[in-house]
Amino acid sequence: MAKEKKKKAPRPRAETPRGFRDYMGAEVTQRRAMLERICAIYHAYGFDPLETSAVETVAALGSFLPDVDRPNAGVFAWPDVEDPAEARKEDWVALRYDLTAPLARVVAQHRESLPSPYRRYAVGPVWRNEKPGPGRYRQFYQCDADTVGSANVAADAEICMMLADAFEAIGIGREDVAIRINNRKVLNGVMEAARLLDPAEPEAQAAARGVALRAIDKLDRLGEDGVRALMGPGRRDESGAFTPGAGLAEGQIDLLMGFVAARRETAAATCARLAELVGSSATGADGVAELETMAELMAAQGYGTRAVIDPSVVRGLGYYTGPVFEAELTFEITDEEGNRRQFGSVAGGGRYDDLVKRFTGQAVPATGISVGVDRLLAALAAIGRGEAEAAGPVVILAMDRERMADYQTMCAELRSAGIRAEVFLGGGNMAKQLKYADRRAAPIAVIEGGDEKAAGQVQLKDLALGARLAAEIETRAEWVSQPAQITVARADLVAEIRKMLARGKD
Amino acid sequence: MAKEKKKKAPRPRAETPRGFRDYMGAEVTQRRAMLERICAIYHAYGFDPLETSAVETVAALGSFLPDVDRPNAGVFAWPDVEDPAEARKEDWVALRYDLTAPLARVVAQHRESLPSPYRRYAVGPVWRNEKPGPGRYRQFYQCDADTVGSANVAADAEICMMLADAFEAIGIGREDVAIRINNRKVLNGVMEAARLLDPAEPEAQAAARGVALRAIDKLDRLGEDGVRALMGPGRRDESGAFTPGAGLAEGQIDLLMGFVAARRETAAATCARLAELVGSSATGADGVAELETMAELMAAQGYGTRAVIDPSVVRGLGYYTGPVFEAELTFEITDEEGNRRQFGSVAGGGRYDDLVKRFTGQAVPATGISVGVDRLLAALAAIGRGEAEAAGPVVILAMDRERMADYQTMCAELRSAGIRAEVFLGGGNMAKQLKYADRRAAPIAVIEGGDEKAAGQVQLKDLALGARLAAEIETRAEWVSQPAQITVARADLVAEIRKMLARGKD
Repeated sequence: MAKEKKKKAPRPRAETPRGFRDYMGAEVTQRRAMLERICAIYHAYGFDPLETSAVETVAALGSFLPDVDRPNAGVFAWPDVEDPAEARKEDWVALRYDLTAPLARVVAQHRESLPSPYRRYAVGPVWRNEKPGPGRYRQFYQCDADTVGSANVAADAEICMMLADAFEAIGIGREDVAIRINNRKVLNGVMEAARLLDPAEPEAQAAARGVALRAIDKLDRLGEDGVRALMGPGRRDESGAFTPGAGLAEGQIDLLMGFVAARRETAAATCARLAELVGSSATGADGVAELETMAELMAAQGYGTRAVIDPSVVRGLGYYTGPVFEAELTFEITDEEGNRRQFGSVAGGGRYDDLVKRFTGQAVPATGISVGVDRLLAALAAIGRGEAEAAGPVVILAMDRERMADYQTMCAELRSAGIRAEVFLGGGNMAKQLKYADRRAAPIAVIEGGDEKAAGQVQLKDLALGARLAAEIETRAEWVSQPAQITVARADLVAEIRKMLARGKD
Repeated sequence: MAKEKKKKAPRPRAETPRGFRDYMGAEVTQRRAMLERICAIYHAYGFDPLETSAVETVAALGSFLPDVDRPNAGVFAWPDVEDPAEARKEDWVALRYDLTAPLARVVAQHRESLPSPYRRYAVGPVWRNEKPGPGRYRQFYQCDADTVGSANVAADAEICMMLADAFEAIGIGREDVAIRINNRKVLNGVMEAARLLDPAEPEAQAAARGVALRAIDKLDRLGEDGVRALMGPGRRDESGAFTPGAGLAEGQIDLLMGFVAARRETAAATCARLAELVGSSATGADGVAELETMAELMAAQGYGTRAVIDPSVVRGLGYYTGPVFEAELTFEITDEEGNRRQFGSVAGGGRYDDLVKRFTGQAVPATGISVGVDRLLAALAAIGRGEAEAAGPVVILAMDRERMADYQTMCAELRSAGIRAEVFLGGGNMAKQLKYADRRAAPIAVIEGGDEKAAGQVQLKDLALGARLAAEIETRAEWVSQPAQITVARADLVAEIRKMLARGKD
């Protein structure tokens, strides 16, 4: 047979797994700069950093695991044993899917030694075993701040004010942010008023409430009519598919829709309207009082216009147990379809009281915020307030490979003056070296050939000016005729480069 | 049956998986501060940051997978498919075990768009599926810098000088660091001189060379006699167990041991001695010339005493293909057994030319350094040059829960003055609040009860002075009698706290 030759092992593909990506250069430094500013605010508010391990036991993570046969649904999980055939359920570990579940584990594990209340912030990647899509990755950054162990609504107000300060610290103006606040207890109160919830029998009508809650959660997407249909007889969408409704009566639906439309000109007026809606519900009154207190505390510190009571915030109402927050950027951008629209949500959070209870049996009150790091970076880029592109280094061309020490001395002089600098270490002629400098986004290239050396001079090429020509230049003779190039004394290297860089910033 | 009652699901244990840990407070900020300084040096040298995903395909990672039946040996791996029963070999993904393998994948994947040479640095956690032990974790930080695409030994010298600058930037004095440099080509040359390696037949005697190389690698642990025994007839250890040797003749062993003992007073003298040992070997002469050039380049920049040619550096000789580096901290510490010893190695690296070849078939020259982040942090702590303990916030006691807005105003005033501050948000009497402030390492507690409020005053308690008493104090009457407490006008809050904090730093 002709094809008997032994096959070589195929080369591995140089690719990330699907849904993963790399971050390079300015992508890394811009995110780092933004997170440093946010964390400095959290630190000033008394929050301490916490960095948990990426891997948790599946038992500690808890959620996202509805299917016992497939413990890796939603998370990346594997059995932490030598022989997978012997793995028991409790041997499974997984990558964390958020920063909240690990916080709950830490609070339960270290409850004797941690201060209470415990204010902590955390920044880091989380992983989701989901289907990747455009702009949708299976590893992404979160930046959270939470206060665990305080039932005081002042903790919720503090989180909202701190978030407002964080936005200001990264260069987003006060006029461009709205932190909107709602409260799950008020919704429960409205449900009591609508006879959808009986405090004496909290499990009754749970299914109808669930349908109604999920309907409210779709307000942004379906509009008022769609939500009303889902609360009532059901909804037929454009494709003709029918979704059964909660079967509520018109009056009940009016009350619930009245809740999401309860926002008035002032926080006091909104709270007054909510008080009407919850009627005699004690839980509802409690929620309204929480909103009133938050509004007062925020107004007292001058945050009244940036953090507002707005019952149309529906995201998270099914998850949180008290106040719910959402931060929206209100400036407009042009989306992929060319339409102008508000940038939208970049952070969300609220009060949750049951997370630690899973471990200890004791409910621990907690409240917090999670910032969508990638969206916030995109927002900064959209308004041109991101960090400047990371400046490339000054590149010293290697004109004579025997004189590396001289070029390294130039680099050292420039670095001592705070100027990023490097010598070209590859092979190739001047055209190739200039192309390299271009690709490095170098502002300046330094040339010291034999003639310059003999004359005690160096050539400085302003690449910011001359970049577009570099690719076309083949010979040195052409190059020296370009305008963006000057000859200076070697002794003036640092001073002249400093001047050139300063000029580039004008 | 008595025990028919349905069992409740047991509560999950609040624990990290074995071998994983959390980092809190100052542990996070100290590491961050150290890495920021190191990365600033790398940046100044023209290195760009790269952050790869934590997850790679097992095929791209390549190593650590000798056992086909157990693809998770050495790494944390799992099949990236919905149904594990259908997983093929190429479906497996894993957490990265270092930062070099992902770099090789990135260079192969983006070779068209990356500059060449590509200088990059990377900081982040890596994961090893190994047996955990005391101080030995399965997730830890690495901090790497590599230059890919340059065969020039100036790149190796640059890495060593940059590392020396990084040590200086984090507060380790020049007298406390030794960067020692060896070269694999010189060892190969010595092996040729010893007739252990024939360039015309490079595979012959590979087994004996392997035994000899592993023996050299154990020089630190076994001493000269042990290594000689392993190179010769074999070695019997204290337990009586026998390890077969390489079977080399005395003359061969003398040459190899002469290599590791070749360090002389000056780099030139060391290189001259190495030139003798490699005899007529072209590879050996090449390696000696590389060491000479590196020594000249480093001496020219004033690093001659910090970075030295030292053939006794044996770690990594089996892995690297040219220059090999190791950074040792030379100051003494007292170890767990009470003995004084040098702190030892905190970074290592060298030249490796085959990593990218796995993907593309083309060899790409590369050189780099990896810093052991945790060991370096421990070193800083050992010499008292770590960042100061993260200062706790000034804590405003919540004397009257109705007056939260007043306390938050105090916090805002302090933060505006750059002073970290928070209000107590839990429940409890003054003793409990002071205990909390203590646990927060708060320098100062601020008290404004009804009397103080009426008098326009606040009480400032210097907790740095009074901390040891706080636990014993039960009543306010006792507390106000303590010396570390002053009464100041409310209007002077910020100024007085600033004074008190400045005093604490004397």
